[in-house]
Amino acid sequence: MLKQRPQPEPVDRVFRALADPNRRILVERLSHGPASVSELAQPLPMSLPAVVQHLQVLQASGLVRSEKVGRVRTCRIEPAALRPVERWIAARRSAWERRLDRLGNYLTESSEEPKEGKP
Amino acid sequence: MLKQRPQPEPVDRVFRALADPNRRILVERLSHGPASVSELAQPLPMSLPAVVQHLQVLQASGLVRSEKVGRVRTCRIEPAALRPVERWIAARRSAWERRLDRLGNYLTESSEEPKEGKP
Repeated sequence: MLKQRPQPEPVDRVFRALADPNRRILVERLSHGPASVSELAQPLPMSLPAVVQHLQVLQASGLVRSEKVGRVRTCRIEPAALRPVERWIAARRSAWERRLDRLGNYLTESSEEPKEGKP
Repeated sequence: MLKQRPQPEPVDRVFRALADPNRRILVERLSHGPASVSELAQPLPMSLPAVVQHLQVLQASGLVRSEKVGRVRTCRIEPAALRPVERWIAARRSAWERRLDRLGNYLTESSEEPKEGKP
């Protein structure tokens, strides 16, 4: 079957980007609207360079994009970047539910009288 | 506002666990039903100890639990562990949609005649 090491995918970078609570706070803030780097940094208990580094990870994942106008860099969220992660999770959820359905059917059938094969 | 460094949360561990393509393959496999460690390792292009290490990360995240009977350790998925991640993503999606609605309302209102304040 699968004998090759899978290539890193965008979904890896999105999961990794979201594994840090401070990066999730940045995404939460940007979900409500665009913000400058200093607006994003202001409430966070870390240095501006640390915030910039987190923003770089978010940009590399595709979740955030930024634009510099004059001296102000404005960041905004890219909701589409979350889609592969949403799809992956939804596929797992649906596999689990199908499995539970099959298990339910099996238990129902086993508790009924054995039947001859119907056409 | 927020001045304390947020504590690591279960959701961090789940996001981090899922950031590795091999760990996602293990979760995908287990979504279809329980499997022994050697069944899980067989199709993967890595050593058994590497698989065990990935399984340990998945167990620490709560996504997988395992039970040893005799010499066989059987792993199964814990779908509930994905809930915090699903909730976090759904909350972002809903914040984005509310923002788009507000933007839509604003654009509709701006394109209509200016109205006096209604009661």
